[in-house]
Amino acid sequence: MVDTMRVSVLRGVGDVVLERRAVPRPGPGEVLVKVSAVGVCGSDTHYFDHGRIGRFVVDQPLVLGHEASGVIAEVGPGVTGRRVGQRVSIEPGRPDFTCEQCLAGRYNLCPDMRFFATPPVDGAFAELVVVHQAMAHVVPDGVSDEAAALLEPLSVAVWACGKGAVGAGSRVLVTGAGAIGLLCVQVARALGATRIAVSDVNPARLAAASELGATDVIDARTARLAAGLDWSPTVLLECSGHPPVVAEGIRSLAAAGRAVLVGMGGDELPLPLSYVQEHEIEVTGTFRYANTWPTAIALVESGRVDLDRLVTSRHGLEQTPDALAASRRDPEAIKAIVHPGR
Amino acid sequence: MVDTMRVSVLRGVGDVVLERRAVPRPGPGEVLVKVSAVGVCGSDTHYFDHGRIGRFVVDQPLVLGHEASGVIAEVGPGVTGRRVGQRVSIEPGRPDFTCEQCLAGRYNLCPDMRFFATPPVDGAFAELVVVHQAMAHVVPDGVSDEAAALLEPLSVAVWACGKGAVGAGSRVLVTGAGAIGLLCVQVARALGATRIAVSDVNPARLAAASELGATDVIDARTARLAAGLDWSPTVLLECSGHPPVVAEGIRSLAAAGRAVLVGMGGDELPLPLSYVQEHEIEVTGTFRYANTWPTAIALVESGRVDLDRLVTSRHGLEQTPDALAASRRDPEAIKAIVHPGR
Amino acid sequence: MVDTMRVSVLRGVGDVVLERRAVPRPGPGEVLVKVSAVGVCGSDTHYFDHGRIGRFVVDQPLVLGHEASGVIAEVGPGVTGRRVGQRVSIEPGRPDFTCEQCLAGRYNLCPDMRFFATPPVDGAFAELVVVHQAMAHVVPDGVSDEAAALLEPLSVAVWACGKGAVGAGSRVLVTGAGAIGLLCVQVARALGATRIAVSDVNPARLAAASELGATDVIDARTARLAAGLDWSPTVLLECSGHPPVVAEGIRSLAAAGRAVLVGMGGDELPLPLSYVQEHEIEVTGTFRYANTWPTAIALVESGRVDLDRLVTSRHGLEQTPDALAASRRDPEAIKAIVHPGR
Amino acid sequence: MVDTMRVSVLRGVGDVVLERRAVPRPGPGEVLVKVSAVGVCGSDTHYFDHGRIGRFVVDQPLVLGHEASGVIAEVGPGVTGRRVGQRVSIEPGRPDFTCEQCLAGRYNLCPDMRFFATPPVDGAFAELVVVHQAMAHVVPDGVSDEAAALLEPLSVAVWACGKGAVGAGSRVLVTGAGAIGLLCVQVARALGATRIAVSDVNPARLAAASELGATDVIDARTARLAAGLDWSPTVLLECSGHPPVVAEGIRSLAAAGRAVLVGMGGDELPLPLSYVQEHEIEVTGTFRYANTWPTAIALVESGRVDLDRLVTSRHGLEQTPDALAASRRDPEAIKAIVHPGR
Repeated sequence: MVDTMRVSVLRGVGDVVLERRAVPRPGPGEVLVKVSAVGVCGSDTHYFDHGRIGRFVVDQPLVLGHEASGVIAEVGPGVTGRRVGQRVSIEPGRPDFTCEQCLAGRYNLCPDMRFFATPPVDGAFAELVVVHQAMAHVVPDGVSDEAAALLEPLSVAVWACGKGAVGAGSRVLVTGAGAIGLLCVQVARALGATRIAVSDVNPARLAAASELGATDVIDARTARLAAGLDWSPTVLLECSGHPPVVAEGIRSLAAAGRAVLVGMGGDELPLPLSYVQEHEIEVTGTFRYANTWPTAIALVESGRVDLDRLVTSRHGLEQTPDALAASRRDPEAIKAIVHPGR
Repeated sequence: MVDTMRVSVLRGVGDVVLERRAVPRPGPGEVLVKVSAVGVCGSDTHYFDHGRIGRFVVDQPLVLGHEASGVIAEVGPGVTGRRVGQRVSIEPGRPDFTCEQCLAGRYNLCPDMRFFATPPVDGAFAELVVVHQAMAHVVPDGVSDEAAALLEPLSVAVWACGKGAVGAGSRVLVTGAGAIGLLCVQVARALGATRIAVSDVNPARLAAASELGATDVIDARTARLAAGLDWSPTVLLECSGHPPVVAEGIRSLAAAGRAVLVGMGGDELPLPLSYVQEHEIEVTGTFRYANTWPTAIALVESGRVDLDRLVTSRHGLEQTPDALAASRRDPEAIKAIVHPGR
Repeated sequence: MVDTMRVSVLRGVGDVVLERRAVPRPGPGEVLVKVSAVGVCGSDTHYFDHGRIGRFVVDQPLVLGHEASGVIAEVGPGVTGRRVGQRVSIEPGRPDFTCEQCLAGRYNLCPDMRFFATPPVDGAFAELVVVHQAMAHVVPDGVSDEAAALLEPLSVAVWACGKGAVGAGSRVLVTGAGAIGLLCVQVARALGATRIAVSDVNPARLAAASELGATDVIDARTARLAAGLDWSPTVLLECSGHPPVVAEGIRSLAAAGRAVLVGMGGDELPLPLSYVQEHEIEVTGTFRYANTWPTAIALVESGRVDLDRLVTSRHGLEQTPDALAASRRDPEAIKAIVHPGR
Repeated sequence: MVDTMRVSVLRGVGDVVLERRAVPRPGPGEVLVKVSAVGVCGSDTHYFDHGRIGRFVVDQPLVLGHEASGVIAEVGPGVTGRRVGQRVSIEPGRPDFTCEQCLAGRYNLCPDMRFFATPPVDGAFAELVVVHQAMAHVVPDGVSDEAAALLEPLSVAVWACGKGAVGAGSRVLVTGAGAIGLLCVQVARALGATRIAVSDVNPARLAAASELGATDVIDARTARLAAGLDWSPTVLLECSGHPPVVAEGIRSLAAAGRAVLVGMGGDELPLPLSYVQEHEIEVTGTFRYANTWPTAIALVESGRVDLDRLVTSRHGLEQTPDALAASRRDPEAIKAIVHPGR
């Protein structure tokens, strides 16, 4: 086994460089993964551009990247089974597994969660990473390395659709057609939603939404949500984080509808109280996901969700800054992928 | 049967007078109820004081009162069983029973609902009223006429606790200790909540809350919610309608907590978005109730909830204006009751 | 309007004849429907062959048929909107709308339900039938008359999948590939199930199952359920009613799995108690459906479920006996349709 | 710290002896607990009398006892906080924490669970035991050592009531008034059940049931369930394990009722299929519990459940055989407690 590896490190706003670091060694119950592919998330780009997200501040060098796949190269003490050589998708959080939230099945709310690329925990823009064996999910042959990496954002969409109780005959409004919004479209369709409207200001994204299963698209530059639909949604999957859109989206819901606030949009936003009360709307937010990988894998393996379609550029590890800036430079960019091994 | 009856009519702001009207006759499936007791709700007082609540405007004479009990005096065509003479609690809404919401068990969201004392539908400050037979719930002997009337606000509390999923070991924060808040305390306790904190600015109400089962009281004149508790609530039952309290209440919730917005507080309020997301808080509002009477009756009959304790004044029909003003005149007032038959 | 119509009447075991009867007139809230298509259900055939199903005995002439579509020809008092001429799918039950079960959204459990083709209530093998307006569901242009009739068995499948909480990543075992089983396959697929196994003794039905979305088929003549799968189902949709299959199906479930007993199989069957306990299996049965038509219509309109594919023979009203016997004569028969208007 | 301790060991049917063993040492994340009190469960008595329960066979010496409380005496590596000296109730199972069931919050279904007093895992009839820190639940001062031990059977009842969705206005039938049945009565009452019937053949137990909150008792020696009640239960909590009682209990349920099979009653039992289908009854079994201790502690601390009332005899460790035989010798026995430290 080699002793050092290349990592791509964020040192300050807009300052990402390649470094050589010692290869970490897997502890009890952990595995070492040789990274194949890492997707760039909007949060990576936000840290790159601003050095912080809300109360999370990058005040020491940080490795970004939390959408990753790879191959298990080494196992730590106590790891059983023939795991070396398995191709895996990495679930990038490490809860403590034994607190009240974990035991209740809500490990995403574990107060001791250590999550990739969230200060001060390093992420996956690296040749090798260590994760807990339970968070290294084996992927079937039919799922590409890039798709295996994108099971992470797919998990966000699976979780959002679950919170929204999307099911047979659901009428869904997705506000914001970035990668998460486009995945929400696909998952909602796979779950039986029969009307799926998508709003965005970017025509390329609306076109992608149509291609991936949206039944209605609303160009938010020219139309308001209310004007764009002749049916009322039962579920809002809010992926824009734009406060006026949130309020407008909620006001468009049918009675007993559900609003799931996925997009981050600051500390406070105006809630249409009387609308929520008179229509008994359920409003909730999502924080990552829990127990989504098996479902996400099954959806991709069975062809219900197409992840490869979202990839719009590919980069070597030394090109990480380009990958982080891709969405800013190209309006048609959806998902940039870094391949640390190339 | 007599042909005319006395009713108490709101003609304009602060203007309530006794009138004599023709006795209504029950249509198919309906019953005529001789009214025994009617509770005064905050909404009655609000119409009396302001002539409107939000978009509901009193622009023609209106009979107030929607918390009522009585005795069935006459039945309409198609009503079977020996219903004349039954002592009943009146559920004051008449949905259409066959729309999509009704068929789904959410008749409170029926778009064709006709609800007592909501313009232009007359209420129960009258000697006799007509209701659908399904909305005239038989009460057992052990439940007083006044308690039978107060099954209506109890239903609001039962519904709120249901929306909040209050159960064994729930830790509940009730903000606002008016009649609804005090009923929420009792219902939460009956459902297994083991910590129940109540906040209000009125010491008399806080004393009543303690007596009825609150484990902690917070004097909102001097203490903030966060400072008043050494435990974090799993459920917020918001009964104040005061926007800063709503936001503060939500921010006090434990992860995966639920906020139920019962108090009416205007069209919009600030939602603490990032708190809701990071803790996956569920926020919802209540609009009346559905299918609550059997539960409410059982809770009172079994002694789990004490409704008689809430009655602080009694009035004849001709004293309806006094009843409507009682809460304004007496800080210790909780529930005024009008007895149309006295 | 004509005054008489043709109906097909079951007078005794194996004895179905055409009669001429007076056209019924719609009462308040009702509509008269000119019947386009009626599917033959296994229960129709069972009444035809045996004169009874369990405690329901045909002791007077009975019109069979409860899977029906048509066009509204006339409306009763109180029916509003422009309903005459609408093409509708008939929901064949008439609950009382106001009992405790109805108000709770469980109108299928209404003790006063009057259901088509269940003694002594006549069904739809007739030129015209009367139904409540709420049970005449408008169908879109893209749904054929035959498909509109088959929304009834589709509703059984939608309800079963709901009881089974079929969703993203569910692994479903359908035992019995008759019309209901084949519809369960399609609905499970539409709801995100990624593994769907079907067992039956009839090769033609297994072939249809594969075509409609099953990922695994088990020929029950030669293989046991347990031997036929290398994965464990999370949901059992039991459509065979064959007691050994029920028990074997339950024993095949993964921990926390759900078993939905759709097929009728007599008064009692052996429940594998210790398996149910150790794996905390949820077992339930279905009785018709509630609130399924909007979902069923949306699934067909959006192309997720193909109903026309199930039709294997067509008959005029005078050929009703042939239609009732079709499944007995032809092993490849799935669904016979009677067209009363032809 | 002492090096050896006394334990009470089952060597064969009816053969329990005191032995001296080495004190176990806590590993990473574990704590060593000095045992205060241990309740005797029916399963302990069953192993003592028969040497096996179903497929679990005592084929080597086994320490019984899984209802235990104590004081933390020592902590293993990685245990943080001031845990030594804490008074704790022991949750007697050790799941692997990271399998699919554990991560989903269903750790009771963990296939790698190691559970006290289940062959080959030793239990708590010992002076000291080692448990995972997450399974050593701190108890408040107001909860006695014996009550702290009995939080384990209380957890069974909390879990059963949860599976039964017992809530406000539930009408509950508890079949079997042993310790679990009596705890179900108390929990059901604490959760808002307003009718609670209990059946048993033992008059002393029926008397205890009445005292603890049952509203109806049925002497199963003379009355059938159906004859004993003038109301229909919405929930069956089956604690007898007697097959005819299970079937009769299910047949007594109201439409949409729930049956929770807690009592162990062999491998198979007759399920009243047509009743389950026509009334859409949900039937499930329980296997231990998950996440119940916080609730159980809160119920006891708040006075909603009285555990001390159940204790009918106390024994030293050397009297373990007497404790195991108590229920056989004394028809009024409910719960025997062993105090290893006395």
